[in-house]
Amino acid sequence: MKKSSVPVRTDLRADDVVVGVMEATRERRQFLKRSLGAAGAVAAVAAVAAVPVRAADPIGKDFPAWSTTPGTPMRSYGQPSKFEEKVLRTVTPSYGPISPGTGTSRTPLQTLNGTITPNGLHFERHHNGVPEIDPAQHKLLIHGMVKKPLVFTVANLLRYPMVSRTCFVECAGNSSANTLPKPAQANCAAIHGLLSGSEWTGVSLSLLLDEAGVEPGAKWFLAEGADSAAMSRSVLLEKAYDDAIIALYQNGERIRPEQGYPLRLLVPGYQGNMNVKWLRRLELAAAPMHTKDETSKYSLLLRDGTARQFDFQLGVKSLITQPSGTLNVPSKGLHEISGLAWSGAGRIVKVEVSSDGGANWREAVLQGPVLSKALTRFRLPWEWSGAPAMLQSRATDEKGHVQPTRAAWSAIYSPANRYHNNMIQTWAVAADGSVSNVYL
Amino acid sequence: MKKSSVPVRTDLRADDVVVGVMEATRERRQFLKRSLGAAGAVAAVAAVAAVPVRAADPIGKDFPAWSTTPGTPMRSYGQPSKFEEKVLRTVTPSYGPISPGTGTSRTPLQTLNGTITPNGLHFERHHNGVPEIDPAQHKLLIHGMVKKPLVFTVANLLRYPMVSRTCFVECAGNSSANTLPKPAQANCAAIHGLLSGSEWTGVSLSLLLDEAGVEPGAKWFLAEGADSAAMSRSVLLEKAYDDAIIALYQNGERIRPEQGYPLRLLVPGYQGNMNVKWLRRLELAAAPMHTKDETSKYSLLLRDGTARQFDFQLGVKSLITQPSGTLNVPSKGLHEISGLAWSGAGRIVKVEVSSDGGANWREAVLQGPVLSKALTRFRLPWEWSGAPAMLQSRATDEKGHVQPTRAAWSAIYSPANRYHNNMIQTWAVAADGSVSNVYL
Repeated sequence: MKKSSVPVRTDLRADDVVVGVMEATRERRQFLKRSLGAAGAVAAVAAVAAVPVRAADPIGKDFPAWSTTPGTPMRSYGQPSKFEEKVLRTVTPSYGPISPGTGTSRTPLQTLNGTITPNGLHFERHHNGVPEIDPAQHKLLIHGMVKKPLVFTVANLLRYPMVSRTCFVECAGNSSANTLPKPAQANCAAIHGLLSGSEWTGVSLSLLLDEAGVEPGAKWFLAEGADSAAMSRSVLLEKAYDDAIIALYQNGERIRPEQGYPLRLLVPGYQGNMNVKWLRRLELAAAPMHTKDETSKYSLLLRDGTARQFDFQLGVKSLITQPSGTLNVPSKGLHEISGLAWSGAGRIVKVEVSSDGGANWREAVLQGPVLSKALTRFRLPWEWSGAPAMLQSRATDEKGHVQPTRAAWSAIYSPANRYHNNMIQTWAVAADGSVSNVYL
Repeated sequence: MKKSSVPVRTDLRADDVVVGVMEATRERRQFLKRSLGAAGAVAAVAAVAAVPVRAADPIGKDFPAWSTTPGTPMRSYGQPSKFEEKVLRTVTPSYGPISPGTGTSRTPLQTLNGTITPNGLHFERHHNGVPEIDPAQHKLLIHGMVKKPLVFTVANLLRYPMVSRTCFVECAGNSSANTLPKPAQANCAAIHGLLSGSEWTGVSLSLLLDEAGVEPGAKWFLAEGADSAAMSRSVLLEKAYDDAIIALYQNGERIRPEQGYPLRLLVPGYQGNMNVKWLRRLELAAAPMHTKDETSKYSLLLRDGTARQFDFQLGVKSLITQPSGTLNVPSKGLHEISGLAWSGAGRIVKVEVSSDGGANWREAVLQGPVLSKALTRFRLPWEWSGAPAMLQSRATDEKGHVQPTRAAWSAIYSPANRYHNNMIQTWAVAADGSVSNVYL
């Protein structure tokens, strides 16, 4: 193999090279100016400790094997590096052999960055496993209060005009662990991982409904899946004329089996299971259907003893993903606090971060583009002094909704309620750098 | 398994149900009003022929097996449906056993939708295969005309503040088949599939360079990969202070081996191979290095016999992906023309579509958000009369660049030039619906 015409430098000694760890520079000082110190103040540059890595000859005279021998060939469908083989969904079957396939797998938010969730790591919530549907046999029926019942093959739907929606999907039961009396000592995936973000593409539901012809009295539609749980939810018809789509593609490729292949309903900002997977039937009606999936489950239990049904829209919420539960802050000094914010009501306009349990707040930087009902990545530099800290984030959306404290949330909901938990998460950083889940 | 409290309708007979194929409705007529007829005119609704599908009992009394038996369990890392197993990258080794791992694999653009390419289908172009790099041993060196040479471990880089950039990566040799004298009869992947779109996340290169301290005379930097081809390119330093990043994440997860794991340079809008994968070294200099990868290759041969080196920015371009070469338009009637547009110079502001080889044009709808140097999906309804048609798309970017015709492009470049082909693509639709690649 012919080598580069630019020979690799082999004359650098270890002493010539400084290990890069955010040393003091103009850029670094600018970065620090907007950072969050232990008490919200800008820390001294001199206080930054170097990360203890070996400052050996950086390239070396001895090339690693991968720089001297040909690599592996192209592949028709790629997979992650074997060095990332632990970056997986956390699989939690709920009920064991009595109800096969029931349970969840959770997105490892603490090891991801950006806002798109790769399809292999999108969370799952199934009520009776993942059906293997032959798209040539699958059909979608629209009937009930329509002038002309319609049935669509998948091939037909693929001929319709498409739209794309980049949005989050979150299970109504996400973060339910934090509604329990004691804080679980678990990672971000286990507590908050029923949350993912994708670019979905499909057909506007309104286009299909107009073709069927909606009867004047219709106010709701039932969406029913073809899985053996026949998962079904009632949705207000107005959502179909807002932004609902019949999704066929996720992040470019056709939807995967565990996300509803060959098609699912997508109702941006609504409870996760309303985005009915393996969708086979939409029935228009004057009133909701009161299915098992919206009576025994997915209703909100309130503090006053009543229950709130058909409260679809998920609240404004945010979450620090790095650092987070069970991770370690490796050393004193400068770190980036990074996390996700989202709202079922629209765009995120502000995320504030506190390192002292909510006494002081500083506004984080939002990574653009900030899209409606989509995950928004926020970031803020943090100079850790080494003293114990309480990290929190608080999101505000364009409708003025502000993420509630634990106390404010608990004033509304019953202690038995496990849904719509959007309370502020507190991560405690101990003096040894360990991060734990605490209630404030 | 408990069944839904809403029983599935089994009383629908075939005669009750109309197969949905864009029948005449108000919505459909609105849709048609902005459609592209055979001569740019609005076609009559009555002319739409139904897609011949069997109007059988849509749900049926006999449920398919997947609706009556539990499905498969959750998985820790998901994969596409087995029914999509043919949606793969087109792998083309260039030189066989002489240079293992050299060649390309191409994104199947004709089967995808939206703007994100799933990581498993992002195109590949390697010069000596895919190295399997241990991130614990990999280092990035910044040296040359800097005040203080620096070396970064991957663990250190992961501590730095991150930014995300949603952008396209396109090989400089993409679409080179269409620079040959005769049009290849091949699909969209084979001709144009060295193009993909992702959300990349990493560290601003300017932050690292400021830490090293750039010497006054430095104007360029060399970027070198750790693969056994030591792929290396010279980049103008100003790009580092514009939007270049050291990318560590792609679509949320860590970059995959074939995309440069553990890290790559990302220079949005520049020739694909300048986004140096497996990046191990950045050397600042007063002048470009003239490596093998920018002298023997990746220079542009011009009509006047000269060559243009270091022309980095990719031109404004668009492409109809559906319908496209080797596909079939299944019937007369309404279809959606869909495709991708992009520019190395910034945002796409307009895409026009012609069905008569460029005589008449109609403006397509751009799917938002339209981002700088990112893939933009365009869509336009098309009423196909059944007569032969010549489909073209023409993109304009925010700098006023307009995608050139084949003739305009060929007036600039040598017949031997294989790079930077951004000429308008023509897909010919024959009376039988078959689609072929033609030169106009």
